[in-house]
Amino acid sequence: MIRKDDSDKFAGINANVQKCGIFSDKELQFFNNLLQYKEVPKKTFLLHQGEICRFEAYVVKGCVRVYFIDAQGAELTLYFAVEDWWVSDIASFQEHKPSTLFIETLEDSELLLLTLETKELLLKEIPLFERVFRLMVQRNLANLQERLFQTVTTSAVEKYLNFLERYPNIPNRVAQHYIASYLGFTPEFLSKVRRRLYK
Amino acid sequence: MIRKDDSDKFAGINANVQKCGIFSDKELQFFNNLLQYKEVPKKTFLLHQGEICRFEAYVVKGCVRVYFIDAQGAELTLYFAVEDWWVSDIASFQEHKPSTLFIETLEDSELLLLTLETKELLLKEIPLFERVFRLMVQRNLANLQERLFQTVTTSAVEKYLNFLERYPNIPNRVAQHYIASYLGFTPEFLSKVRRRLYK
Repeated sequence: MIRKDDSDKFAGINANVQKCGIFSDKELQFFNNLLQYKEVPKKTFLLHQGEICRFEAYVVKGCVRVYFIDAQGAELTLYFAVEDWWVSDIASFQEHKPSTLFIETLEDSELLLLTLETKELLLKEIPLFERVFRLMVQRNLANLQERLFQTVTTSAVEKYLNFLERYPNIPNRVAQHYIASYLGFTPEFLSKVRRRLYK
Repeated sequence: MIRKDDSDKFAGINANVQKCGIFSDKELQFFNNLLQYKEVPKKTFLLHQGEICRFEAYVVKGCVRVYFIDAQGAELTLYFAVEDWWVSDIASFQEHKPSTLFIETLEDSELLLLTLETKELLLKEIPLFERVFRLMVQRNLANLQERLFQTVTTSAVEKYLNFLERYPNIPNRVAQHYIASYLGFTPEFLSKVRRRLYK
């Protein structure tokens, strides 16, 4: 395996945070030094329901799935995090509460992690990062609200088209049943929707 | 009607923001001067679906309901905002997108409003307010995620008990069918759940 150099590893996350504020090279360096780089094989659990979430992770490469298990034991995918997304259970992370979520890699993934300690240190030293996290959380809230709205208002075909718009590459990367569990469909029903669409 | 003096009007919101950071009297004064105080009679729409949301409102007094209308024309209440809550459609407000939500007062209400302009001015002058809004949005995201989780995992009776825990006073303040539309029940089913509970 070819080892990436640091500039490679941090290029994406630095571009990501620069969208929300202007940081000096020195500030970015401080930020990068706080991040923990981790390579995680596919099918690894980053979090189980009932555990306290100890990270906010930026996806450098790979695909991570966040899901619930419902009262009937069925999986309900909340979202997929691919390159340039952040993933965490913010409620559990921030309030040290047991999580209601499972977080699992679907592909071999490269992550950059903040812990509560390194995040607080970052915010203390460079308060402008408050803005980065505010805008990130706001986007997550908007996405979840939009998802809830679509759940109750749109047809199955529209739901699938909206999914493709949000995640253009996911259908080539993950098994169909994960997509079904995001859409609230059975795998059979998803096949039917896809056939209807591509006929 | 007895007119409240200013210190009265701002006491709650100032205590609310002081939880997230230490602001000087001068900073709070600057913040308070940006807020627009508004008395709104009950049954007034603050936002219709399709409009762009122009406010983030703090509820000094009263009760505001936020809801979707689903494909069958049924109302789905996302949340109630009572004293010391904030209410907005953050996606629409921040990104100038048409809203998917309706926001309506259920009681005569007193609100303190920020517009996008006054909010940006506030954040420019007192960047520590980024933290206030980050923590607020984070709480909202945690609430919505928890709500989604409960929707798929808990029994009807548990759902109602969780609702009472979150909103201890709402049942005395708003009509039963609004509570039903929050819980995803028909009003008849809500009556049945309450009877089962209080037997």
